[in-house]
Amino acid sequence: YERWIQSQQLRKWDLRCLKLQPLSPVPSDIEISRAQSPKAVDVLAKEIGLLTDEIEIYGQTKAKVRLSLLERLKDQPDGKYVLVAGITPTPLGEGKSTVTIGLVQALTAHLKINSFACLRQPSQGPTFGVKGGAAGGGYAQVIPMEEFNLHLTGDIHAITAANNLLAAAIDARILHENTQSDKALYNRLVPVVKGVRGFSSIQLARLRRLGINKTDPETLTEEEISRFVRLDIDPSTITWQRVVDTNDRFLRKITVGQANTEKGFVRQAQFDIAVASEIMAILALTTSLEDMKERLGKIVVANDKKGEPVTADDLGVTGALAVLMKDAIKPTLMQTLEGTPVFVHAGPFANIAHGNSSILADKIALKLVGEKGFVVTEAGFGADIGMEKFFNIKCRASGLVPSVVVLVATVRALKMHGGGPSVSAGAPLKKEYTEENLQLVADGCCNLQKQIQITQLFGVPVVVALNVFKTDTPAEVDLVCKIAKQSGAFDAVPCSHWSDGGRGAVKLAQAVEKAANQKSSFKYLYSLELPIAEKIRVIAQKVYGAKDIELSAAAQSQIDRYTRQGFGKLPICMAKTHLSLSHQPERKGVPTGFILPISDVRASIGAGFIYPLVGTCHPQTYLVCIQLLCPDDLRICIQSLKRTGPKM
Amino acid sequence: YERWIQSQQLRKWDLRCLKLQPLSPVPSDIEISRAQSPKAVDVLAKEIGLLTDEIEIYGQTKAKVRLSLLERLKDQPDGKYVLVAGITPTPLGEGKSTVTIGLVQALTAHLKINSFACLRQPSQGPTFGVKGGAAGGGYAQVIPMEEFNLHLTGDIHAITAANNLLAAAIDARILHENTQSDKALYNRLVPVVKGVRGFSSIQLARLRRLGINKTDPETLTEEEISRFVRLDIDPSTITWQRVVDTNDRFLRKITVGQANTEKGFVRQAQFDIAVASEIMAILALTTSLEDMKERLGKIVVANDKKGEPVTADDLGVTGALAVLMKDAIKPTLMQTLEGTPVFVHAGPFANIAHGNSSILADKIALKLVGEKGFVVTEAGFGADIGMEKFFNIKCRASGLVPSVVVLVATVRALKMHGGGPSVSAGAPLKKEYTEENLQLVADGCCNLQKQIQITQLFGVPVVVALNVFKTDTPAEVDLVCKIAKQSGAFDAVPCSHWSDGGRGAVKLAQAVEKAANQKSSFKYLYSLELPIAEKIRVIAQKVYGAKDIELSAAAQSQIDRYTRQGFGKLPICMAKTHLSLSHQPERKGVPTGFILPISDVRASIGAGFIYPLVGTCHPQTYLVCIQLLCPDDLRICIQSLKRTGPKM
Repeated sequence: YERWIQSQQLRKWDLRCLKLQPLSPVPSDIEISRAQSPKAVDVLAKEIGLLTDEIEIYGQTKAKVRLSLLERLKDQPDGKYVLVAGITPTPLGEGKSTVTIGLVQALTAHLKINSFACLRQPSQGPTFGVKGGAAGGGYAQVIPMEEFNLHLTGDIHAITAANNLLAAAIDARILHENTQSDKALYNRLVPVVKGVRGFSSIQLARLRRLGINKTDPETLTEEEISRFVRLDIDPSTITWQRVVDTNDRFLRKITVGQANTEKGFVRQAQFDIAVASEIMAILALTTSLEDMKERLGKIVVANDKKGEPVTADDLGVTGALAVLMKDAIKPTLMQTLEGTPVFVHAGPFANIAHGNSSILADKIALKLVGEKGFVVTEAGFGADIGMEKFFNIKCRASGLVPSVVVLVATVRALKMHGGGPSVSAGAPLKKEYTEENLQLVADGCCNLQKQIQITQLFGVPVVVALNVFKTDTPAEVDLVCKIAKQSGAFDAVPCSHWSDGGRGAVKLAQAVEKAANQKSSFKYLYSLELPIAEKIRVIAQKVYGAKDIELSAAAQSQIDRYTRQGFGKLPICMAKTHLSLSHQPERKGVPTGFILPISDVRASIGAGFIYPLVGTCHPQTYLVCIQLLCPDDLRICIQSLKRTGPKM
Repeated sequence: YERWIQSQQLRKWDLRCLKLQPLSPVPSDIEISRAQSPKAVDVLAKEIGLLTDEIEIYGQTKAKVRLSLLERLKDQPDGKYVLVAGITPTPLGEGKSTVTIGLVQALTAHLKINSFACLRQPSQGPTFGVKGGAAGGGYAQVIPMEEFNLHLTGDIHAITAANNLLAAAIDARILHENTQSDKALYNRLVPVVKGVRGFSSIQLARLRRLGINKTDPETLTEEEISRFVRLDIDPSTITWQRVVDTNDRFLRKITVGQANTEKGFVRQAQFDIAVASEIMAILALTTSLEDMKERLGKIVVANDKKGEPVTADDLGVTGALAVLMKDAIKPTLMQTLEGTPVFVHAGPFANIAHGNSSILADKIALKLVGEKGFVVTEAGFGADIGMEKFFNIKCRASGLVPSVVVLVATVRALKMHGGGPSVSAGAPLKKEYTEENLQLVADGCCNLQKQIQITQLFGVPVVVALNVFKTDTPAEVDLVCKIAKQSGAFDAVPCSHWSDGGRGAVKLAQAVEKAANQKSSFKYLYSLELPIAEKIRVIAQKVYGAKDIELSAAAQSQIDRYTRQGFGKLPICMAKTHLSLSHQPERKGVPTGFILPISDVRASIGAGFIYPLVGTCHPQTYLVCIQLLCPDDLRICIQSLKRTGPKM
C-alpha cells in the first residue's frame, strides 16, 4: 500500500484539462468565468493524488486540504519552486496574478507538466471598491471567480474574528483591572467550580513566566495574586487594532469606550483592513498547527507600565484564537479556467504586511506536483518589496529554496518609468500609452534592469515575462526583451495569456523550465545577527538604492526597546510604498541619492518580524481605504447575482 | 421519474440512527459531542430524500441545502409545525434548545416518525463569553458542537460583511456629497466607460422613484442631475450601525471619522452585535432570493433633510448586499447526537431582534418530513417575546400555520417566580433551588399559567415540557404537571433528554403527536390595519398584562413619522427585557398594574417591522456586551483545539 501511494505521487497527473476557445474581443472576466464549467473539486483532488480523507469539500468548486498530507508525503522530493514578482507597478497593477495563472495553465494544460499556482485570497475591501477582484483576468483566471472573490472558505472572516476577540480582551481587561480589587479579579479568573479552584494550563504558563512555581490557587500570597491578576497594560502603548474587511474610511481613526458603562475609559484607536492583521501574517508564515498556536500566543499587544511586552498568552486568549483559526490554516483548492489546480491561502497587502501566499500552501503543492513538477507562487507588488520579503522572511521561515524568479513587466509601466504622464485608476490612459513610443520604453527599462539586479542579489535565475497589451507594438516588445536579456535575465518572453489562455504563456513556461535547470545559488540578503538598524540599512541601500537611512527619534527608541526586549534577531518587513523604489511614490524609474526616512518601527512578534514605517507609509494611510466606495462599481455584483439566481 | 420522486418523499425515512449509551454522571458537552461519530452529511442528506445536486457540502458534517428543493417539492403537503417556547427564564436559560433537540431525537430515533429541528446559529459573542455555545447540551445536542458554535458555514460573517458595507457606503456618500460638485458626483456615479455613459438598473429605478423618466445620462437637466446625485442624508437621523460578532463593550459608543482624510466629518456611532443586524432579520423572514433582494433594497438607513427615508437602493448597494448574502440564504444541515436531521439558520437575540430561526429552513424541513412528519422550531426567550413574534411576525410572513406549542418550564425558574432568591450567571445556586420547596413551586406556577394563557390567545394547543434537573423532586415535578394541566395545557410532561437523550423525551413526543391531531384554530393577535400605537397597546395589555402603555415624545414623533412615510401597516417587534413579563427585569411571576413605557420607536423596513424600545431596553445596552470577556471561559477552546490537532 505504501508503495502504491509512492507510485501514485511520482507519476504525471492524468488531468482532464478544460478546453478553452478564446473569443475576440475578450469578454468581461465574469462572462469568461461563467462560460466555463469547472470540474467538481473532488474530481480534481483525485486527479492530483489527494486521498478522500485529506480534503474537506466546500460546495462544488472549493475544498480545504488537510495538513496530514505533509506527514504522508514527507519523503516525497519537492518540485521546483517558482516565484512571480514584478517591476515597480503603475497603480493599475501589471498582471502578476494573470501571469501566475497563465504560467500554470501553460505548464499543465499545454506542456503536460504537473504544476500548481499558489495565490493570495483577496480582501473584500478592494473587491467592492474600484479595483475589483483578484482572480486573475481574461483567459487566465481562477474559477468560479465570484467564489474566489467573495467569502471563499471563510479564512479572512476567521482572522477578523480572532483579531477582534483579542482587541476586545485588551480593553475589557484594562477596565476590569481599573475597577476591581485583586481578590475580585482572582475570583473571576480562577473561579471555584463545583467546590474546586484550579489553574488552566495557560494560567500555569503565565505563573511560570512570573517565576511563581505553584499549582494550587489557594497557596498564592497576596503579592503573588496581585502580580498574577494584573497585566498593568499601559493604554498609550497598545499596538493591537481592531480590523474590518471593508473599505470603511470613517474607521481609520476613532474614539472607543464612550458609553457610560465604560466609566470614562475612552481612548483613540483605529480599524485596519482585516488582511493587514498580524494574524494574517501568522497564517502565511506558519508551518503547523502547533507552530500557529505558539505564534498566536507570542503576539505582543502592548507594553505594561514597566515597559515589558504584554502578549496574547498573558491575556489568556491563545486557545480561543487558535480554535477560531483551526480551519483557516488549511489551504483552499480551486482550479484555473483550464482545470489545473490552484491553492488560495493567506492574504495580500505587501506594502504594510509581508503580502505572500502561505508557506503551507507552497509546501503541500511542492509535494503534490512531485520532483519534476512546478509550484508557482506570487509575491505582492514590485520585486523590491514583495520578493525581498519572500526571500528574507518567507523562505527563512519555510526553509524552501526557490529555483526561478519570473519578473513581470508591461510596456505601460516601463513607459511610465521612462517619463510618461502619470497613470491613475479611473482616468483614461494618455496616448503615450496607446501609441508606439520606443524612447519612453527604452528610458523606462532602467526600472526593469534594477529589479533584475535585485533578484540577482539573491542568486536566483530570473525570467522576464512581458505581459503584452493589445496596444503594444512588436518593436516595443522586442526592445524590452532585448534590454532584459542584456541586463542579465536568463530569458525574456512576451506572453498573451490574458487573451489566449495557457497557450499564450507556453514560451514563458518553456523558458521557466529551462531556467529551473540552471544552478541556483540562493542566499539571504542579510544575517539575522545584524542589529535592527543595520538590517534596515542593508535593504535600503542594496535593494532600494538609497544613500542611507535616517531614523526618527521614535524609530530609534523603538529599535532600542525591541532590542532590549530580546526581539533584535528578527527579520525586517519594510512598510514602504510600492509605487517607487524609494519612499516617494512620484519618483519613478530608478531614484538615486535619497536618504530613506524611517518614521517609526513596530513589531509583529507572533508573525516574527520587525516592521519599519518608511516615510509617510503609515498603516492608517494604507490600510482602511485603498479605494473610495462607489456604487457604480457594484454593478458587476448585481449582474453576478442575477445570473446566480437559477442556481440557488 | 416524477412519480418516483413523489414516492421517495412520502415514505418514512430509512434513517440509520446513532446509538447512545448515556453515562452517569453526565460528562461535559464537548466530551459527549466528541465521543459520538457523526454520519457523513451526504449520507444523512440522502437518507432524508435530498438529491445530490440539492446540497453543497461544507466539510464532513455540514451542508447547505439549495432552495430549488422548494420548487421540486411544491406539491408535497407540509408536515406538522411545532414551536418550542418557554416561560419567563432565569438568566441561565431553561433549556429550550435541549428540549427542541431532545424532542426530535425522540420522534425520529425512538418513535420512527420523520422529524426535523430548526435552530438558530449562535453568536460568537456569547460563545466566547460566560454563556458558552448553543448547540444544546448533555445528550440532546447538535454535533459536532464546535462546528455548530464556531463559524458554521459563514452566514453571520456574510451578514457582518453586508451590514458593514452598507454602513461604510453611508458615511462615504455623505463625505462625497459634502466635498464635491454635482458634476463631479455625476461623473463618478455614471462614468464614461469606453466612450459610453449608461445608467445601471438600480440607478434607473432611483430615477423612476424621483419621477425622472429618462434613460440617457446625457439628457438630464442640471436640476435633475442634482436630485439624482444628492441623497442629502441628515447625519443625525442615521439608524444604520456597524456590527461585530464579538462581545466588544468598548464599541458600544464611539466617535468615527477622526482621521484628517475625513475632513472633520466626525459623528457619534456604535457597533451592535452582528446577529442583531436588520440583515439577520431579513435572512430569517425572507422566502426567496428575489424577496431577499427586495427587502435588502428597502432597508431604510436614515432620513434626508426633508424627512424622507433614504434606502439601500438609493445608495446603490443592493446588488452588493445580495451577492454577499447569496450563500447565507441556504439553510445548513447538521445532525443530532442520535443522527437525526437539524437545520441551523438565522440568528438569536429575541429581545431586540425577532429571534427566530428562518422561514426558509422551516419550509424546506416541512417538505422533507412529509405530511405525517414534524418540524420543531424554536423561538427565543419567554413565550411573551419569542412566541408572540413568531406568530405575529414570522407566521404572517411565511403563511405557515403551527399545530402545537411546546412550552418549556423548569422547577428552578418557577421557584424564582414564586419568590426565590435571585439567580445569576457565575454565582452558585441558593439552597431553595437545590432542595424541595413545594410552596415556591406552587407560587411560581403563576408565570407558567400566564404563558399558557398567552399561547391560547393564538388558538394553538400547548404541551408543557418540564425540563427536569437532577435536584428536582418527584413531588415538585408532579405539582408542576398538575397545575399546568389545570391551567389549560393539553398535556404536561417531565423530560430527561439532557441525561438520557431522545429516550428521555419520548413521552413528550407522544403528547406532541396527540396534540397535533387536535384542532388548531390559529389566529393573529392584532390586525395590521390598526394604528402603530394601538398594535403596541394590544401586545402590552393582552400579552404582558400591562394596564396601558406610555409613549415618550420621541416615540410619538417616530410613530407619526413612520405613519406619514407609509410604514404604519407593519407588524410590531417589541424590544423588551426577557427576564420579566413587564419592562422591569426584577419583577418576576406575573406583574400587574404596570404602565409599559415606550421610550423610542424604530423601524426595520427591509425586514418589515416596527420596533418599539421598551423602558431602558436600548440596543446599545443589550447588544454588544451580553457577558464580560473572561479568559477562564476560553479553557474549553484550548481543550477543544488540543483534541482537534490530529484531525487537521
